[in-house]
Amino acid sequence: LSARLTIALDAMGGDHAPSVVLRGANRALRSHPNLEFVFYGREGVVRPELDRLRRLKKVSRVVHTDDVVDSGERASVALRSGRNSSMRLAINAVKDGQADACVSAGNTGALMAMAKFALKTVPGIDRPAMASFFPTLRGESVMLDLGANVNCDADNLVEFTVMGNAFARSVLGLEQPSYGLLNVGSEEQKGHEELREAAALLRGADLPGHFYGFVEGDDIATGTTDVVVTDGFSGNIALKTAEGTVKLYTEFLRRTFRSSPLASIGYLLAKPAMRKLGKRVDPRRYNGAVLLGLNGIAVKSHGGSDALGFAHAISLAVDLARHRFIDTIRADIGKLDRRPPATAQAAAV
Amino acid sequence: LSARLTIALDAMGGDHAPSVVLRGANRALRSHPNLEFVFYGREGVVRPELDRLRRLKKVSRVVHTDDVVDSGERASVALRSGRNSSMRLAINAVKDGQADACVSAGNTGALMAMAKFALKTVPGIDRPAMASFFPTLRGESVMLDLGANVNCDADNLVEFTVMGNAFARSVLGLEQPSYGLLNVGSEEQKGHEELREAAALLRGADLPGHFYGFVEGDDIATGTTDVVVTDGFSGNIALKTAEGTVKLYTEFLRRTFRSSPLASIGYLLAKPAMRKLGKRVDPRRYNGAVLLGLNGIAVKSHGGSDALGFAHAISLAVDLARHRFIDTIRADIGKLDRRPPATAQAAAV
Repeated sequence: LSARLTIALDAMGGDHAPSVVLRGANRALRSHPNLEFVFYGREGVVRPELDRLRRLKKVSRVVHTDDVVDSGERASVALRSGRNSSMRLAINAVKDGQADACVSAGNTGALMAMAKFALKTVPGIDRPAMASFFPTLRGESVMLDLGANVNCDADNLVEFTVMGNAFARSVLGLEQPSYGLLNVGSEEQKGHEELREAAALLRGADLPGHFYGFVEGDDIATGTTDVVVTDGFSGNIALKTAEGTVKLYTEFLRRTFRSSPLASIGYLLAKPAMRKLGKRVDPRRYNGAVLLGLNGIAVKSHGGSDALGFAHAISLAVDLARHRFIDTIRADIGKLDRRPPATAQAAAV
Repeated sequence: LSARLTIALDAMGGDHAPSVVLRGANRALRSHPNLEFVFYGREGVVRPELDRLRRLKKVSRVVHTDDVVDSGERASVALRSGRNSSMRLAINAVKDGQADACVSAGNTGALMAMAKFALKTVPGIDRPAMASFFPTLRGESVMLDLGANVNCDADNLVEFTVMGNAFARSVLGLEQPSYGLLNVGSEEQKGHEELREAAALLRGADLPGHFYGFVEGDDIATGTTDVVVTDGFSGNIALKTAEGTVKLYTEFLRRTFRSSPLASIGYLLAKPAMRKLGKRVDPRRYNGAVLLGLNGIAVKSHGGSDALGFAHAISLAVDLARHRFIDTIRADIGKLDRRPPATAQAAAV
């Protein structure tokens, strides 16, 4: 029997709040019956919706606040003026130990800024990173950073690797994950200076699993490594390019099946199987990006997500909490040899 | 009636050379009957293959050389020691005016280094960029740089925009192309410093068409702009991520159609339409990356391409030559106001 977990939810975040948040929680409750929820937001809109979801209502509390972070608001502004926002209160619940994790579908930049400010990074981690898992030919992999840090140095990339590695072990259940750095070629001399430096550091590090070296864009979908590490700029572009490509392919497929009567009949026969495929590549299944490296679990749901997608984001938060993910990061980062190479060499002599 | 064009081919470049190069040229001849070819490579292997292709033989010459650039060779080494290589001789043919364009499926780095060294950049262009076009929901777009320049400043990005814009007008036939800078968000304050600087410069530039601003990864497949401009690192990652995603989707689709007898029958009925789709997303159709910004046309074919793919790379070279693409770039780059903003302001007062 798994322990009871409390999830703090920003009831006002996302394009279809609070409805999607409530219905998402209701859905998550089916697969995780031991959950409790605290909804932060405008009681006047949250309460009536909650009243219609009997089972959810029994395990939920509502904490009223009028303040909401706007989706277009700059992170710095949200950080200053959003101290009583639904997003911030949900994060505070994690900070104060009242909740095991929080989930928001609101403004990404604001969530990152607030979570970093309130939860602080794990000692030894300079900056948090956004991570998410995705389907590959071999199963599932995790990629980070997906946009939290536009500029990264070698140390950041090494820290991201530690976090991604811990994520693969706890959430994906891999004992010895393979991990690689996203680059424009697999040869040692390729890419940005910080990538070559990070590769050298990782070759010397004693992380569980196997350091593959550099991977390229097509290795992401192939699943060449279980963990793909990159800076937030490239990671964001890779993620969104893949999303766009799936949409394009799906649309071409739709047009194909409508292009002739025979193809339409073919589609009808193949429909149940196609639905299964649809589920497999359904971005809702992969909804939920985690802000890794903080002293607390904060998950970002896609702003346009529906209840199913939001439920997946909650499941991800539950997985991270259950697997004591943060303890794993703390232990791993402590094991990294952070002495500068020169000192390490001198010590070896 | 279109004029006769001569294409110089590196007969030894690529995984399946010289066979693919010769059969690719033979195929290209079907759609472009006015072509002439010069094959650079080992006569002993090129000649027997050419002898079997009667029609091609009539319009072809073979220039023998023993030297071949190795696929793993570093660009700097190839540049120094590959002066008599098949790749270099093909480039020299363009430089000396003996050919209108050259195509190679060999070592990308070496081709870039040699082409830049031999052909030199157009005055006003600091660095050449790799460009290719690709399918979108709206039709076709062009993206650059795809990997020639890992680190780019704002001026490089502006020059890439001029080149991409000219490419869209000549190869894609768009009179007023829209163009955007690839970034991690559409808001003005997003992304790297050099992107914001390039955006400011482009807003003030007088290029044909419309500057859209920043685009994101998913805009590539959507076709939000006709031209997507980015540095070579992000461009390479976006391109390869899209390729990997298409492969993944295709494989999932294949498995789907085999997952039940009904789905298999459905597939049989839909097969002719599926073939059409296959053609539409066939990477061979989009084979051929051009090295833009040089005083001559050099096209890189994918190293693993087959004859169809190689024929497409030749077609791209033909399009660029026919549309006097380089003259367009020369004219456009001359129109750019390259004075620093301060001087420009002073002049306006």
